[in-house]
Amino acid sequence: MYHHVTQIRICYADVDQMGFVYYGNYPRFYEIARNETIRSLGLSYKGIEDRGIMMPVIEIGIRYKRPAHYDEIISIHTFVREIPKYVKMTFYHEIYNENGELLNEGFATLAFMQAANHHPCRIPEFLKELLSPHFPEQTEQEASKNL
Amino acid sequence: MYHHVTQIRICYADVDQMGFVYYGNYPRFYEIARNETIRSLGLSYKGIEDRGIMMPVIEIGIRYKRPAHYDEIISIHTFVREIPKYVKMTFYHEIYNENGELLNEGFATLAFMQAANHHPCRIPEFLKELLSPHFPEQTEQEASKNL
Amino acid sequence: MYHHVTQIRICYADVDQMGFVYYGNYPRFYEIARNETIRSLGLSYKGIEDRGIMMPVIEIGIRYKRPAHYDEIISIHTFVREIPKYVKMTFYHEIYNENGELLNEGFATLAFMQAANHHPCRIPEFLKELLSPHFPEQTEQEASKNL
Amino acid sequence: MYHHVTQIRICYADVDQMGFVYYGNYPRFYEIARNETIRSLGLSYKGIEDRGIMMPVIEIGIRYKRPAHYDEIISIHTFVREIPKYVKMTFYHEIYNENGELLNEGFATLAFMQAANHHPCRIPEFLKELLSPHFPEQTEQEASKNL
Repeated sequence: MYHHVTQIRICYADVDQMGFVYYGNYPRFYEIARNETIRSLGLSYKGIEDRGIMMPVIEIGIRYKRPAHYDEIISIHTFVREIPKYVKMTFYHEIYNENGELLNEGFATLAFMQAANHHPCRIPEFLKELLSPHFPEQTEQEASKNL
Repeated sequence: MYHHVTQIRICYADVDQMGFVYYGNYPRFYEIARNETIRSLGLSYKGIEDRGIMMPVIEIGIRYKRPAHYDEIISIHTFVREIPKYVKMTFYHEIYNENGELLNEGFATLAFMQAANHHPCRIPEFLKELLSPHFPEQTEQEASKNL
Repeated sequence: MYHHVTQIRICYADVDQMGFVYYGNYPRFYEIARNETIRSLGLSYKGIEDRGIMMPVIEIGIRYKRPAHYDEIISIHTFVREIPKYVKMTFYHEIYNENGELLNEGFATLAFMQAANHHPCRIPEFLKELLSPHFPEQTEQEASKNL
Repeated sequence: MYHHVTQIRICYADVDQMGFVYYGNYPRFYEIARNETIRSLGLSYKGIEDRGIMMPVIEIGIRYKRPAHYDEIISIHTFVREIPKYVKMTFYHEIYNENGELLNEGFATLAFMQAANHHPCRIPEFLKELLSPHFPEQTEQEASKNL
């Protein structure tokens, strides 16, 4: 499993009249966390697009437990649980406030797509290679299958 | 089942550099559609808050099938499948483009909460009464249970 | 002068914890109003882009007088005061609430730019022709200059 | 003069189909920069609201020179040019990209308002005191006037 933490401070624009972060802002926070997670692997989502691969989101789910408030710093934990085998990749997220309370948990699943023709494709090798060192067991299994 | 359709035209702000509506904007579109659905029942979400009830979102899920593009008019179909029995209410959504193609489908589940003390509560009677005419079977069943 | 009115209902996402529409949302409302103004002339901003012209915003100014609130319908009045002579075009806006109170007034100036090479250019003829019937005096003056 | 720099990385949500940061997102970036500027003085905007003062924005102006792109880090320079004397305060901003190119410059003027009754008021003393060390000349002048 690969795990990365990204922190964001809640700005005024993000809070609604309940005094809570608007529920519809979390997908953006998830996106920022995904990007920083990919960057921590040694690439960036921009680098993936520059190599001709787009990753549109095909599914999300979020369970909201507690609200975040203005000016709080939230910690977005992002988990990659496996090296994607086929045409999509899932990022799992848990957001905590400064007291360590779980605010919400969710996921986003993205497809791999060739930018040139918008056709779905398998996980690109350059991304697989960046993930491999963090999934020794999975990498070994696949290696042995290929013998 | 109660069914309502809301139309929205995609503005420039909502589209990303793929030329697609950013995935994180759909929860806002769902919110607009929920509100118009409640309004079509004879109230408004604002009217619910004015009566001391808040409805924070506690869960969402969205499956994205096709992208929406700039300047398109999307039709958001909202479905209420039953009169909520307890402390939460689910709205189901399907979004179609002008060609009748399904863009995405999802749901949002909201809790009923007393604004005064932030305690969860059952569906308020005034909302139940507005829904009842649209769920004759469910209303009858509950009436017979109360005999 | 050309004048067009666009109405928008304020959604939950747009309101901050003061209970006011967040000041940073008005540029988006201005954009929607600009687009509907262009559409009312017989084109659309998308149509302009499809003809190879982009119109990035180069300057905005807004004076905020009164706040808008959740679920209110605001009326965005858009004014074009002249047919642009050179490489830019200004739209003036006034937003009113349902009581006819002025909420804010402002403007946005956009440049004409060739999409192909990102070079600035003059107002395209097809847009000039759509504006001309609404500016008879200006059109006449220019015609006489060309004699 | 007081000067503070805040850095923000551009996320996917902020970029439009031109591949540029949508013009309407800059007021949010300005807000984040204002807040960090106030924080660098030893307070926070939240701290100001907690003391019963709200600061709604009453005017903004932005001149856009160059676009920002996805994944770039922008540096928002914020300038306070004087200790506000009356009921409003202006923050000046300049945004630069990683190459040191000016992307846009602008300002936001905020009013001081008592949260309790929404009446305008003068700059609160606690904020004046935090600014004073950075404006020795102005502080001296006012002190001499008070003799």
